Amino acid sequence: MLYVASFEQARDLLNFKFGNRYVGKEQVVLADAVNRVLAQPIVAKEDVPGFDRSTVDGFAVHAADTFGSSESMPALLRKIGEVSMGEACKLKCWRGECVAIPTGGQLPQDVDAVAMVEVAEDYGGGLIGIIKPVAPGQNVIYRDDDVSFGEEIYSCGIRLKPTDIGALAALGFNEILVSKRPTVGILSTGDEVVPFDVTPKIGQVRDVNSMLLAASVTRTGALSSRYGICPDDDDVLQERIAMMARECDVVFLSGGSSVGAKDALKRSVEALGEVYLHGIAVKPGKPTIFGEVSGKPLIGFPGHPAAVYFIYDLFAAPLLRGMMGEVESLPPPRYQARLTNAIPSNHGRQEYVAVRLTAEENGLVAKPLMSKSGLITQFARANGYIEVPRDCEGFSEGEWVIVVAL
Amino acid sequence: MLYVASFEQARDLLNFKFGNRYVGKEQVVLADAVNRVLAQPIVAKEDVPGFDRSTVDGFAVHAADTFGSSESMPALLRKIGEVSMGEACKLKCWRGECVAIPTGGQLPQDVDAVAMVEVAEDYGGGLIGIIKPVAPGQNVIYRDDDVSFGEEIYSCGIRLKPTDIGALAALGFNEILVSKRPTVGILSTGDEVVPFDVTPKIGQVRDVNSMLLAASVTRTGALSSRYGICPDDDDVLQERIAMMARECDVVFLSGGSSVGAKDALKRSVEALGEVYLHGIAVKPGKPTIFGEVSGKPLIGFPGHPAAVYFIYDLFAAPLLRGMMGEVESLPPPRYQARLTNAIPSNHGRQEYVAVRLTAEENGLVAKPLMSKSGLITQFARANGYIEVPRDCEGFSEGEWVIVVAL
Repeated sequence: MLYVASFEQARDLLNFKFGNRYVGKEQVVLADAVNRVLAQPIVAKEDVPGFDRSTVDGFAVHAADTFGSSESMPALLRKIGEVSMGEACKLKCWRGECVAIPTGGQLPQDVDAVAMVEVAEDYGGGLIGIIKPVAPGQNVIYRDDDVSFGEEIYSCGIRLKPTDIGALAALGFNEILVSKRPTVGILSTGDEVVPFDVTPKIGQVRDVNSMLLAASVTRTGALSSRYGICPDDDDVLQERIAMMARECDVVFLSGGSSVGAKDALKRSVEALGEVYLHGIAVKPGKPTIFGEVSGKPLIGFPGHPAAVYFIYDLFAAPLLRGMMGEVESLPPPRYQARLTNAIPSNHGRQEYVAVRLTAEENGLVAKPLMSKSGLITQFARANGYIEVPRDCEGFSEGEWVIVVAL
Repeated sequence: MLYVASFEQARDLLNFKFGNRYVGKEQVVLADAVNRVLAQPIVAKEDVPGFDRSTVDGFAVHAADTFGSSESMPALLRKIGEVSMGEACKLKCWRGECVAIPTGGQLPQDVDAVAMVEVAEDYGGGLIGIIKPVAPGQNVIYRDDDVSFGEEIYSCGIRLKPTDIGALAALGFNEILVSKRPTVGILSTGDEVVPFDVTPKIGQVRDVNSMLLAASVTRTGALSSRYGICPDDDDVLQERIAMMARECDVVFLSGGSSVGAKDALKRSVEALGEVYLHGIAVKPGKPTIFGEVSGKPLIGFPGHPAAVYFIYDLFAAPLLRGMMGEVESLPPPRYQARLTNAIPSNHGRQEYVAVRLTAEENGLVAKPLMSKSGLITQFARANGYIEVPRDCEGFSEGEWVIVVAL
């Protein structure tokens, strides 16, 4: 009998065995860094802003000069000059004086606020009336208000979003260290498996898993390399797995669906390295293998593509993200939806059910796509899935459930 | 005075003017199709499965032969052969007989169910005992159960997920039509703007917007092309915009932040084409331009990077997705979180407030990042944002809000 691990045991095992397989760093220019995982702390090389500046178009003033001003009794100030964009401002502004300033312009010395152009009136002859008091510091950003020299802005492990690229540009970083993308070798096995673009004869099936895994790896931000389809022959299989372990950072096998093919897979991994786990109490996805060959993590996926998808999402994606040192700050986004049909109890296995989410008048509804409906129907209709925990009695029709987006 | 459009007016205008700017199709191989937008309906070229098959390892039987069987009174069947994986099965199985069959194997003629190997006992001499009844159709997928020849599986406009790649592989599609990626020309303007990897002098600011927009365009699945930084000179600006309109599908300008620079932008677009809108009642992001030059959609973004982000997300991303013909089936994923601080009312403008989401014991909490805290701080800390509707009185501390992930 196989020892079948629980979801938690399988996850912990993966962490324990492969939690330290960081793939290393490489330097990229900022323009290529979106969606990469940051592999250096980012420390500010300067103060930002580097000078006191206005946040509006208006007049730099001494705030005290405007106290008590109103439309009927404007504060009258003498305009002594203008700040130009992109140029240092050398003006000194005494009490009773003001300086015209554009958004982003450097504040003249001594002033402590900017009155917006909307509250200023130009009486001509250099006389400006301010019709509303401004508080000290109003409409001003002071030097290093945003960031101080030496401050740590980012730590390692974040996945760079467009706004992070913006922040790095604002900090003046062009070449940065990011984690390498792990290369994932992908092999399908089974005498009955034919390339997906070939018309299968009776008894044959198309190789769906290589394509599914390659696309999934791409989405996770790693690199995939397909090694074709291997017949159920221990020698060929072992030679192919050994080659993948030499050439890649991770080995993904997708097993034949028969007991014999599954055993051949396990035998071959054992011959070359070690099998750490064979069987996880999740549905679909039970006949999963975790192992190691030549120091490289290996996952043997089940034969059924729906199972491959879930095992990838639950275990392989976290493995790859861990190898890139990614630190997750948020849970994956989820939707709340009402079930259109009941989902029965699952008898002790954590179960994953594909659903079709649709927006209706009073919220989202989720229609479970039962596996009996077939792979393509499931894959083509599904846009999310539901987790049915191990000891759950199932869900009733109309119940609110949490849906993870596909 | 400027005419300032509401959010809805701006969105409708964009749809009305540019809702028909489809960029065209191109053929790609399936391995390159993940995250692309499908530009052809997918119609099944064959039945799937192409033959009746078993979904388990076991014995193909006449279900009626197993009725009433139990551990103490197994149904005894004569095994007349085996189905091999990857080979057509020519066996004919009479009542009282059974055939060993692997998962995925072709069903012999006449049988109507498969008994799992777990409920079968081999008594030797070709005698198999079935210890549990199986129902007709159990553990069997019939020809075209999943998909029938001629059935439309996908319509145009879906963004291909890994599972869709799997479904297309299962259907045998290798070369497929997807929408071209629109090319987006990006230009920053302003005398005070310097390349982001240069140390700004007093009064200068780094070009953050080009990098932010390029990264955003990448994430939307379009192609970006940066045209550098343009000084506040109408002639140079017009020449540059005209070039971008010739070479790209869309033109993005990010304006200087001063009133003069904004006017220069508007003047140049008017000189070359048409300005449809100047000003949207959203905060940040008011000084936004929508226009058209040489038949190409043009968006003039505000100068402030935070405003650029929101305008991109609210208007530019939907424009680009529309140009790819993408049909959105689901709202973007959102989080529910409790506010750590109150957000004041926004006086008639739809407002977008960046927040830092963190997971706490009893759910997510969202800390508003006020714009005063500065750009880098905001961008580096934010992982989501909140929409404060136009006529909303603001949110109180501890209130539950909906957060869109950045």
